[in-house]
Amino acid sequence: MDLNADLGEGFGRWELTDDAALLRIVTSANVACGFHAGDPATLRRVCALAAEAGVRIGAQVSYRDLAGFGRREMDVPPDELAAEVAYQIGALKVFAEAAGARVAYVKPHGALYHRAGRDPVQAAAVAEGAQLAGIGTVLTQRGSELDRAATRSGLRVVGEAFADRAYLGDGHLVARGVPGALLGPGEAVEQALALAADGTVTAVDGARTPVAAESICVHGDGPGAVALAASIRTALEERGIDVEAFS
Amino acid sequence: MDLNADLGEGFGRWELTDDAALLRIVTSANVACGFHAGDPATLRRVCALAAEAGVRIGAQVSYRDLAGFGRREMDVPPDELAAEVAYQIGALKVFAEAAGARVAYVKPHGALYHRAGRDPVQAAAVAEGAQLAGIGTVLTQRGSELDRAATRSGLRVVGEAFADRAYLGDGHLVARGVPGALLGPGEAVEQALALAADGTVTAVDGARTPVAAESICVHGDGPGAVALAASIRTALEERGIDVEAFS
Amino acid sequence: MDLNADLGEGFGRWELTDDAALLRIVTSANVACGFHAGDPATLRRVCALAAEAGVRIGAQVSYRDLAGFGRREMDVPPDELAAEVAYQIGALKVFAEAAGARVAYVKPHGALYHRAGRDPVQAAAVAEGAQLAGIGTVLTQRGSELDRAATRSGLRVVGEAFADRAYLGDGHLVARGVPGALLGPGEAVEQALALAADGTVTAVDGARTPVAAESICVHGDGPGAVALAASIRTALEERGIDVEAFS
Amino acid sequence: MDLNADLGEGFGRWELTDDAALLRIVTSANVACGFHAGDPATLRRVCALAAEAGVRIGAQVSYRDLAGFGRREMDVPPDELAAEVAYQIGALKVFAEAAGARVAYVKPHGALYHRAGRDPVQAAAVAEGAQLAGIGTVLTQRGSELDRAATRSGLRVVGEAFADRAYLGDGHLVARGVPGALLGPGEAVEQALALAADGTVTAVDGARTPVAAESICVHGDGPGAVALAASIRTALEERGIDVEAFS
Repeated sequence: MDLNADLGEGFGRWELTDDAALLRIVTSANVACGFHAGDPATLRRVCALAAEAGVRIGAQVSYRDLAGFGRREMDVPPDELAAEVAYQIGALKVFAEAAGARVAYVKPHGALYHRAGRDPVQAAAVAEGAQLAGIGTVLTQRGSELDRAATRSGLRVVGEAFADRAYLGDGHLVARGVPGALLGPGEAVEQALALAADGTVTAVDGARTPVAAESICVHGDGPGAVALAASIRTALEERGIDVEAFS
Repeated sequence: MDLNADLGEGFGRWELTDDAALLRIVTSANVACGFHAGDPATLRRVCALAAEAGVRIGAQVSYRDLAGFGRREMDVPPDELAAEVAYQIGALKVFAEAAGARVAYVKPHGALYHRAGRDPVQAAAVAEGAQLAGIGTVLTQRGSELDRAATRSGLRVVGEAFADRAYLGDGHLVARGVPGALLGPGEAVEQALALAADGTVTAVDGARTPVAAESICVHGDGPGAVALAASIRTALEERGIDVEAFS
Repeated sequence: MDLNADLGEGFGRWELTDDAALLRIVTSANVACGFHAGDPATLRRVCALAAEAGVRIGAQVSYRDLAGFGRREMDVPPDELAAEVAYQIGALKVFAEAAGARVAYVKPHGALYHRAGRDPVQAAAVAEGAQLAGIGTVLTQRGSELDRAATRSGLRVVGEAFADRAYLGDGHLVARGVPGALLGPGEAVEQALALAADGTVTAVDGARTPVAAESICVHGDGPGAVALAASIRTALEERGIDVEAFS
Repeated sequence: MDLNADLGEGFGRWELTDDAALLRIVTSANVACGFHAGDPATLRRVCALAAEAGVRIGAQVSYRDLAGFGRREMDVPPDELAAEVAYQIGALKVFAEAAGARVAYVKPHGALYHRAGRDPVQAAAVAEGAQLAGIGTVLTQRGSELDRAATRSGLRVVGEAFADRAYLGDGHLVARGVPGALLGPGEAVEQALALAADGTVTAVDGARTPVAAESICVHGDGPGAVALAASIRTALEERGIDVEAFS
């Protein structure tokens, strides 16, 4: 099982994620590329740290929205969106390659993740952007529009699930803001174990629900986030599950 | 003799340069990379046009200053500046490569051009940024600090001169804003011919002054700019001078 | 009848609207406030010109989206949107007041205009932003959600119609991009006369359709725009209709 | 003696200063206006908190440089700079006035503070921007170019000194980065007491040096900053010095 987290989400004077700590835990790093977070010096530093730690690097692409941290959905026309995605990936590639590594995959951030998950037009634009930039793999939820668009484009899709988010009986996430959408630390560890051991979660209605995932997303911001991520890794390893980057 | 011009200097709704027309005249295109101008869709479009026209692509890197069009000098610390330069080159590389071409050189824009021309610290940072991004050639004025820093870093330097800017007797440009700093169309054609034919200009004090240039910069913005660039190309060709990209 | 147009829609090096020419034609100037266009020096210059010409000044507020020129709809939470609207108005007020004038009204730009026209949440946020900034009047289409929200908030609404946009039989605009959505110059003059003379337009289905308007919007960008605006003003005056700012 | 600190220096998702805690300590709040930090919702929130706490509000104006947090000096032409300063003040005024307060003064931030302190052209532009926006008071160091320019423009200048920065024998600050430039907490409290009690500091060469200050700047970012600010206030009050906003 792969563990992924968002890294490099500061900007200039502002810091958000404890990149060095997270790189000791995760196997795939979704590095912010400058549109919602991530100044160039941070990209360089995080890529160097990831390469040194042997953690795989992915491009965490976003709408162009520093003020909203990429959390405000935008009606970007698909040709603009594809170019914006490719632009961000290209910028990150330079720093990954300078560190002796490479950008292995793309994962949309925030509002773009959610929009591309249900809007086939933006999903196709994200896939086109990845291809423009020569990236062959997309990390996203199985069954989403982005899964479909990427697959149709000949990209490999790596399915991911969330350790600390509650699921509905149909395999979709409970929307943020709905009570119970975020799991506590104990539940998150349990959910990660269930995902890794038999590919299921216990949905909010109590049903055992299949969620196909080769990667589990853990969150790196907020107090307690790094500790929770470490607990998840430890629990997986104690259960005999190898924590390693997807092949 | 190579002819270079700045291209892609619009941003979103705003346009500035007649890219298609310039690509029929110049042999090297300095493409804006998004920090002073150049949205991602424009980068993509200009790279595709340049590749189709067989015009070489260079990265026109800038301070991060859309509001000032990169014309306001900034005290950017060298580590930030190197990363900012590499970021911009990386973004452009994706579109050049998607068009079947490549980014062949780096040329700083506006205030960064002037600052890196006289400040060894920023000059070294620009050179470092080019190397981070895997670019081996810098286009700039011979005798500048950027010439020295790039050479010291093992980069190739292609010297450039300006067709429409007046020179001092010591080979430096007359500062913008000083009366007589900008030449009229007829003088600009004469200066281009002198540069190409025997590597000299007639300075403002009347002295014949050597200016080593493998490339002549023509300007693409402003009324009459495209016509002047075309006149220069025609005049060079009529004099039997090959207009082709530097080798 | 009032005539309004968008002004100050350049940014730094980029220009778009012929502000001086438009100020000889319109009676209300929707001045861009910096979020989709409009650098501070332009705001200052346009406010000074408008004050000198005796043209009323309005705040043309937008999503924060320079790259998309405010034409990309955004899911901005209402508390952020209200603050963003007030921020822009405040910035403009300083320059209007320094010129001896004042900001008399608010008109949303581009995607915010359309979204606030049909989304009661964003409409209420725009109205709240106007009130935060001490502005009492909103310029928008009658019957829109923004009309309702502004009225409910105790703001005065001035209804506007478009000279050069085709209408449906129900009084809504034909969507941009649909063939026939934009009228030619002759039709636009006719529509302006019909709006001013008896408050109707001839819809695309041929029906005479009431459109209540105290102000007619003319466009200032694109070739021929200023000439068309002047034609509309002349036609109204020749028909004996006073062209003056709404009271 | 007045105590001032920088507030509202987050941006969107990023936070920096503990605004609520600082508002219980200082008597003047330098509120970031959006160019180096400070999104509109933060401006609104901080102004409401400051008004409630009875803390005076000032506009902390900056170069337009989010990526550099306003710490990179910029060669902004004076007409642009004056407009940029006025724009920021105008935006803040709306939120101060909506909270029943007003913007009482202007204090430049970061690189603009230092540049305007020694460059008469930028100093005059800052003063012009303040006047454009109808602000009558500038908070800065006595003896600086900004002191001179503001005084010449008829603005009131309130002199400030720094509790935690070392001074040279001539009354200038030891440059950041020089060893000993930053004082430890104990020294900072001593320096604040000396400034308030007899208008002197002990310079790095040991000389007792006059520094005229009606306001002492304390810093709000970094670990221990709030505690140090509170210690300074307590020490001043225990010495019988009234801590209150400048008159």
